[in-house]
Amino acid sequence: MSSFLCEAIHPSRAPAAAGAPPRPAAASVIPALRGSIDAVLAMRYAGTRRLRLQYELAGPEDAPVALLAGGISAHRHVAANALDPSPGWAQGLLDVGRALNLSRWRILAFDYVGADGELDAPIDTADQADAAALLLEALGIDALHAFVGYSYGAQVGLQLAVRHPQRLRRLLAISGAHRPHPYAAAWRALQRKVVALGQLQCADAQGLSLARQFAMLSYRTPEEFAARFDVPPVLCNGRVRVAAEDYLDAAGAKFVARMPTTAWLRLSESIDLHRVDPAQVRVPVSVIAVESDRLVPLADAVALQEGLGCHGRLRVLRSDYGHDAFLKDSVRMDALLASELAAPLPART
Amino acid sequence: MSSFLCEAIHPSRAPAAAGAPPRPAAASVIPALRGSIDAVLAMRYAGTRRLRLQYELAGPEDAPVALLAGGISAHRHVAANALDPSPGWAQGLLDVGRALNLSRWRILAFDYVGADGELDAPIDTADQADAAALLLEALGIDALHAFVGYSYGAQVGLQLAVRHPQRLRRLLAISGAHRPHPYAAAWRALQRKVVALGQLQCADAQGLSLARQFAMLSYRTPEEFAARFDVPPVLCNGRVRVAAEDYLDAAGAKFVARMPTTAWLRLSESIDLHRVDPAQVRVPVSVIAVESDRLVPLADAVALQEGLGCHGRLRVLRSDYGHDAFLKDSVRMDALLASELAAPLPART
Repeated sequence: MSSFLCEAIHPSRAPAAAGAPPRPAAASVIPALRGSIDAVLAMRYAGTRRLRLQYELAGPEDAPVALLAGGISAHRHVAANALDPSPGWAQGLLDVGRALNLSRWRILAFDYVGADGELDAPIDTADQADAAALLLEALGIDALHAFVGYSYGAQVGLQLAVRHPQRLRRLLAISGAHRPHPYAAAWRALQRKVVALGQLQCADAQGLSLARQFAMLSYRTPEEFAARFDVPPVLCNGRVRVAAEDYLDAAGAKFVARMPTTAWLRLSESIDLHRVDPAQVRVPVSVIAVESDRLVPLADAVALQEGLGCHGRLRVLRSDYGHDAFLKDSVRMDALLASELAAPLPART
Repeated sequence: MSSFLCEAIHPSRAPAAAGAPPRPAAASVIPALRGSIDAVLAMRYAGTRRLRLQYELAGPEDAPVALLAGGISAHRHVAANALDPSPGWAQGLLDVGRALNLSRWRILAFDYVGADGELDAPIDTADQADAAALLLEALGIDALHAFVGYSYGAQVGLQLAVRHPQRLRRLLAISGAHRPHPYAAAWRALQRKVVALGQLQCADAQGLSLARQFAMLSYRTPEEFAARFDVPPVLCNGRVRVAAEDYLDAAGAKFVARMPTTAWLRLSESIDLHRVDPAQVRVPVSVIAVESDRLVPLADAVALQEGLGCHGRLRVLRSDYGHDAFLKDSVRMDALLASELAAPLPART
């Protein structure tokens, strides 16, 4: 059950010379479609809900379609395009010259179920996968050429592979695994408690900002902090203030401005509810891990790949950006994505 | 300037057969002295203060003296003795058979300046070292055979080595370095913000408990959490509760019951104010690091040892207990301590 609410811009594309390297393209020549579908979703914990799924689809109409799904604070605007020239959250991976550039790929993205903060109930990654399947059906996309999932998006991609295997030809699961690591789950649980502490006094924003700051530590690495913040603290109003606090404060404030508290709480929980049996996956999966990731340790990526058996391949990136390498180390991440997207697909079993 | 307030118990010791292995000894036969001195301390940031320094001294009167200094929540009661049969915070490292057992060593420990929560001002590790020097003078201890410092205690030991080198023959600096790591400093700064968030609504205990829970994550490792808490979360009143939350809640509650909020805040800051130039150290130092330590990374121990030059030796322990290995992996830690305490002292330069 779905209905369409769309706005679209289809500018004329610059003709691409066959065999020529990709040329710089302004956002204005990237065709884009933005819309929503009203869907009814039977959710794992939250019962049957009527939801509006917001999506954006950018790139040539005849290009292969990839769904790009990011962390819990990601959204449907992945890159600048004719409809919205502001940079998207995955801009660095979709620019001209990249493996997933928007002259050769059509990229679909959607706002996660719960992202608007209206749904105050447990949300499972299976719900997100079912929502993605409804969206694909509504848009007439039989099967994605690739599902590229990063962090929470990798969890959602694994669920899609188990629940709707016909909807994707391959999955790139980046910095995400079949279950949350127990240490990372504890780290998130404490962040949720910070928000609860703030909510006791209606200081939701202060609590969410502080939770985000703790999350930032899990996204980055000591090596990066040592390179950026290795100076003595200062005394400020009789209190010690360490070098990273300005940076963390700014990150917290920026986050609060764009993320409803309820959305964050429920999507944070959703990461911890996630569980997939890798043996149930029958779709080719490229497991891409970052060696320094403190949230999704390499050992979990190895376990996922082992569980996938003949359906899984493992690639490992060294980076000082840890869990955020997908966003911050985009040149080297792009090289990995390029080789994985170009790898021949095995015959399905 | 100091005065004595003492209570002491000197039970008769069981005679030790020469050459025989150490025999089990009840706490009741370990002589102990507990007291305090009133001292005037010129503090680095807090001005000149009159303070009462609380200490405990356990073990035979004629044994070599070691000062044992722990983390910011450690205190003067390190092990069960005739005066206080309750286990001390370093019990596992002082039992019969250990390198530092109380039949062969006399162990001195003191409550850190600020530990009573009465001093609401910035405290430096240099202040703690000066306090230790005053205590040694008052007790008539010319020079410690060893200063064994763990975590914050290692920072204090390095300050003592720089400021009062004649007071110690050797330093064992365990899981602590010449400066806090910038990532660890950020982690602590956020914990202090959690306490501040709680204080906004007079929920000091709730804030301190939560700060402690975040600290626990920095003291332990993902490997330990994976071994203990790798089960799915439960839904509890419509909220996701992960497996480690019971453990963390209990750790937080236990901590709040014994640590004043002001003491914790000022001693947490003190870790971040710490700075020592290793080149200023002229005392033999055994730098003991734990490979999995997330708070004091191995790289910092290496940098400390390099800065110490001919005065530094480095030993590395592999353990799943990270920063807490000193307390939790005491058998293997003891083996390291034994070999370092037995190493011949080089001639002083």
